[in-house]
Amino acid sequence: MTKIKKIATYLDQQKWEMTFITNPTTVNYLTGFAMEPHERILGLMIFPDRSPLLFTPELEVEKAKALVDFDVVGYTDSENPWQKIGAQLAGYSIKTIAVEFDHLILSKSDGLKSVFADSNFANLSPFINQMRLIKSADEIDKMIIAGQYADKCFEIGFHFAASGNGVTEMDVVAKIEFEMKRLGISEMSFDTMVLTGARAANPHGVPEAVAIEPNKLLLFDLGVMANGYASDATRTIAIGQPGDFDRQIYEITRQAQQAAFDFVKPGVTAFEIDQVARDVITKAGYGDYFTHRTGHGIGMDVHEFPSIGGSEDITIEKGMCFSIEPGIYIPNQVGVRVEDCLYVTENGAKSLTHTSKDLLIF
Amino acid sequence: MTKIKKIATYLDQQKWEMTFITNPTTVNYLTGFAMEPHERILGLMIFPDRSPLLFTPELEVEKAKALVDFDVVGYTDSENPWQKIGAQLAGYSIKTIAVEFDHLILSKSDGLKSVFADSNFANLSPFINQMRLIKSADEIDKMIIAGQYADKCFEIGFHFAASGNGVTEMDVVAKIEFEMKRLGISEMSFDTMVLTGARAANPHGVPEAVAIEPNKLLLFDLGVMANGYASDATRTIAIGQPGDFDRQIYEITRQAQQAAFDFVKPGVTAFEIDQVARDVITKAGYGDYFTHRTGHGIGMDVHEFPSIGGSEDITIEKGMCFSIEPGIYIPNQVGVRVEDCLYVTENGAKSLTHTSKDLLIF
Repeated sequence: MTKIKKIATYLDQQKWEMTFITNPTTVNYLTGFAMEPHERILGLMIFPDRSPLLFTPELEVEKAKALVDFDVVGYTDSENPWQKIGAQLAGYSIKTIAVEFDHLILSKSDGLKSVFADSNFANLSPFINQMRLIKSADEIDKMIIAGQYADKCFEIGFHFAASGNGVTEMDVVAKIEFEMKRLGISEMSFDTMVLTGARAANPHGVPEAVAIEPNKLLLFDLGVMANGYASDATRTIAIGQPGDFDRQIYEITRQAQQAAFDFVKPGVTAFEIDQVARDVITKAGYGDYFTHRTGHGIGMDVHEFPSIGGSEDITIEKGMCFSIEPGIYIPNQVGVRVEDCLYVTENGAKSLTHTSKDLLIF
Repeated sequence: MTKIKKIATYLDQQKWEMTFITNPTTVNYLTGFAMEPHERILGLMIFPDRSPLLFTPELEVEKAKALVDFDVVGYTDSENPWQKIGAQLAGYSIKTIAVEFDHLILSKSDGLKSVFADSNFANLSPFINQMRLIKSADEIDKMIIAGQYADKCFEIGFHFAASGNGVTEMDVVAKIEFEMKRLGISEMSFDTMVLTGARAANPHGVPEAVAIEPNKLLLFDLGVMANGYASDATRTIAIGQPGDFDRQIYEITRQAQQAAFDFVKPGVTAFEIDQVARDVITKAGYGDYFTHRTGHGIGMDVHEFPSIGGSEDITIEKGMCFSIEPGIYIPNQVGVRVEDCLYVTENGAKSLTHTSKDLLIF
């Protein structure tokens, strides 16, 4: 069953008359048509009983028509998009519109209400999340490729960081992203993070024109978008010989990451995985310094459902992809995180990145 | 009056009990605290009659506290953020929550409803848009700096594009963004666009590993984020001597851009500005190939209110910043766009970018 047919069947079961899917990533997932409408309107309308309809800014109509085998309707900047949508569906009785509560903003839900005055909204996000949660073999192949680029980023970044005195965090970011663009990767999956020494003690730190400190740890958190799929990985290395305390914190983090990774298999829960990583760090005495969840789902978005150790639990199944990324952050001293994303197999998990997790010293 | 006080006064006038501001750019505009919560919750609560409250993921609390002079409350990944917000406001009677309809997604509006069950939402976006619409002298200074970086990007890009055979669109993008990062610019305001020859006939084209064609036009659309403000500018140059038709299309576009630019002053309307640009292109016979609005507001976001030639009109006032960017796109032949962003002065407008608009031939 195609993905769109699956949604049409679900609509039929739920007695909902149509979708209005606005998340560009979901539209891409369902149709292969990738575009970012910004403040303009993109909407994929799927119905239980008729062919879908894609609504998009006029400028994108030709591109969309080449990719989908159903009707595409465009609107120009001088037209009212909601009226145009309403006109397309004149005569239809629409009681319930399935929309993504995780994406639709109120101004656009108001826009829909302006033409479907008697309709209510139902939340399609859980169903979409569930569809996207289990990756197909084809999707995993794309995730593997995205992971290979992340490994390549590490290789480039490690060597550049070690290439001379005065190289800054931002220089390393610039070099990694430059080389990726030369390889045809136009987009990183998030802002590349390169943080030296105690600056890595902020898990959300931002690289600056700060020289990389010798004999300190250096944290890299990065990933790329390749063929519509994201990678995300973290390595902490050392430039010169780090002190014993840094080595100790590194080793605890690495063990926590490996323990959680090795624990993953179908049937365990996200909370249990989180607990395995957390136990290692807590037993070593640093539980208070592991201040975030253990991981997050990944796919076409770098952060997607589920959370590994968030506020909701989930049972792990074959085909899920998520990160395992414990960290220890001791303010003004040291920050370490080790992260791989993985895909779940029948008996365990396979990593999407393969850069060594030994403490690499350059 | 501080910006926050202005909002508090507005709430008082409207008889609304609180805001829940979720757009990170708005929070940054109002408080100086910049962070991107992704799927987590960021909310700035302003009240008519008490000190504001910033709600943020726990990891960001320290950073926020250093920037704002009111309470900051954090939540961890294992807490229910909505319940924590509700607990902060226990005992308050909240009837109307002012939220940004242009930003708040339904899952978060549902989260608010889960703890403020009897409340309704009012749309704060128009008031915020209106505040952000007129830039202060300090903001214009930041826009000027962002514009200077865009000019620097053109200089780097033009020379690199002309530096040898086989240089690709993506190579030029990589070079520009690399040099910006070396200058401390960590973020472009959007994906840098470099399109050769007929590929520029798609106004939303995406650079690829395609060699730049000799004796053809080459379109650059780019900008940076600097000190929280965006720049955005387009130049079309030639690599080698272009043909007469390309030169003619360039000249019409340039004249349209200049005519609209020169027309701008307080009191004219956005529709009139659009019409001035459109008239030049229509009179030359290419009206059907100018397929988008003439411009858009710019500030902390690269696209913000108002639209110049969209579906709603607005009267121009001193302190507004927006783009003027007519283009002519003839499929499979040629694409030209010329764009500057400007700020409106008492008598006219000043450009934020200064790269020559003569047809530069490299």
